[in-house]
Amino acid sequence: MTRATTQKPQVALVQMTCSTDKQANVDKALDRIQAAAKQGAEIVCLQELFSTPYPCQSEDHAQFDLAEPIPGPTSEALSAAAKREQVVIVSSLFERRSAGLYHNTAVVFDVDGSTAGVYRKMHIPDDPLYYEKFYFTPGDLGFRAIETSKGKIGVCICWDQWFPEAARLTALHGAQILFYPTAIGWLPNEKSEYGPSQHNAWETMMRSHAIANGVFVCAPNRVGHEGELEFWGASFIVDPNGNVVVRASHEREEIVQAECDLARIDVVRTHWPFLRDRRIDAYGGLLKRFLDDESR
Amino acid sequence: MTRATTQKPQVALVQMTCSTDKQANVDKALDRIQAAAKQGAEIVCLQELFSTPYPCQSEDHAQFDLAEPIPGPTSEALSAAAKREQVVIVSSLFERRSAGLYHNTAVVFDVDGSTAGVYRKMHIPDDPLYYEKFYFTPGDLGFRAIETSKGKIGVCICWDQWFPEAARLTALHGAQILFYPTAIGWLPNEKSEYGPSQHNAWETMMRSHAIANGVFVCAPNRVGHEGELEFWGASFIVDPNGNVVVRASHEREEIVQAECDLARIDVVRTHWPFLRDRRIDAYGGLLKRFLDDESR
Repeated sequence: MTRATTQKPQVALVQMTCSTDKQANVDKALDRIQAAAKQGAEIVCLQELFSTPYPCQSEDHAQFDLAEPIPGPTSEALSAAAKREQVVIVSSLFERRSAGLYHNTAVVFDVDGSTAGVYRKMHIPDDPLYYEKFYFTPGDLGFRAIETSKGKIGVCICWDQWFPEAARLTALHGAQILFYPTAIGWLPNEKSEYGPSQHNAWETMMRSHAIANGVFVCAPNRVGHEGELEFWGASFIVDPNGNVVVRASHEREEIVQAECDLARIDVVRTHWPFLRDRRIDAYGGLLKRFLDDESR
Repeated sequence: MTRATTQKPQVALVQMTCSTDKQANVDKALDRIQAAAKQGAEIVCLQELFSTPYPCQSEDHAQFDLAEPIPGPTSEALSAAAKREQVVIVSSLFERRSAGLYHNTAVVFDVDGSTAGVYRKMHIPDDPLYYEKFYFTPGDLGFRAIETSKGKIGVCICWDQWFPEAARLTALHGAQILFYPTAIGWLPNEKSEYGPSQHNAWETMMRSHAIANGVFVCAPNRVGHEGELEFWGASFIVDPNGNVVVRASHEREEIVQAECDLARIDVVRTHWPFLRDRRIDAYGGLLKRFLDDESR
């Protein structure tokens, strides 16, 4: 970003339920993209792995059949939709890269249908009902910013949202808006005791990425019950001061939309000049797993 | 931290006003330390540069006279108080290291009055009414954890709180509780429009450090009017899930106190296993100022 920008893209996030009918999910997403475009959206971001139910609730080899190569039928449908609706689309796909090699991958399409960029999820979770390490090889493309006709954007995916390193690196590459396609929900036996705290921590982390980096942050999340999981929706857009501009409900399918005035980034970053003052001479330990030895 | 801990230190934060009478400020702090100890505190943390008015509202060479060597009269008074009250004290001092060489320095005293560790503020702000770059040489001790008889603690100072790198590095050194002695406030002409957002961003950042690192975070802040600044108080303690356990008012002198059950750290970090999944192979860019060249 060598010059100030005057772009103010309208950004829409699609929060939806998924059935076991993949074509129906894709069709629904295409409908929502069209609806968002009709209400003025210029960038539309879909939730994580939007074309199927969340496939990682068990370790089941049959689930690999849900994956597709990129390009493949779903990416081509999205490319066509981007061109047809004249919107940038940020999508999340279960990528079959080769036999036995799968990724959790984001593809960004520009308004002409071209592929503006690809990101492969770098941080892979593995928790009860989120057995992603069984399915996804960690990304090998690093963190990146993707130039589009509507602004320079970054995509991180779900679990990446808990790592300040991911947001920082994506912002340092010049991303003005960070997207976090997400599939996160409550476990039924935890929701009453821990549910509000979990949801709040999730939103707090991404608000902190907006603040620390002076960028917009947008997180579309899955909604509805699938198996044991209750996806908590609450998709949101945050401004570079960390204020939530718009937030969806916990229960319903929704499209949330807001203008992201990219000129705000320079204002915020000169008033909160964190990038000016990073101590890059003293950050070497961030490349270590732990620093216990050095503390002794 | 090679074994689980059963320590549950009571932590107290002293939020107070300061006058131009340095001895009176020190005496007040010693009184508050005693009061906190009487109500069971085992670790007491003072606000940033507690012994004087915030000295950086202008660039004034006379303010350097407020600094002291370490050890010096104020540090010796704190050492004696730690021993007398049998508490760990986390203090923040204007350090005169040599002629023309000053730091914004935290000193931690253990319950026997010994110096457990020292930290020099690494990130130095420079904003209207916070002209710290004029006064303080950036710290040269790096980020560290300090072993005390009440737990392994880290200290960062005020502006450091906006940098996820500082919290991460301090936690990777093994700190279980991060302290942020702070002096932050509102400018009168900004408070009504931006005040709530600024305060919220400040708390959000530190809550995110607790979440990302699975540690307790404690931030004592100055309160009251000094010159043009209205220090906003609101000192707080956050648990490793990012929940605010206790928060002081915006207007009054207070001591806030909470138990920090250090066994919670292992529970939280195994349920939210972020340290397990950091992509240290892909974080090299964090040591760069910006990554614009690599994006082209």
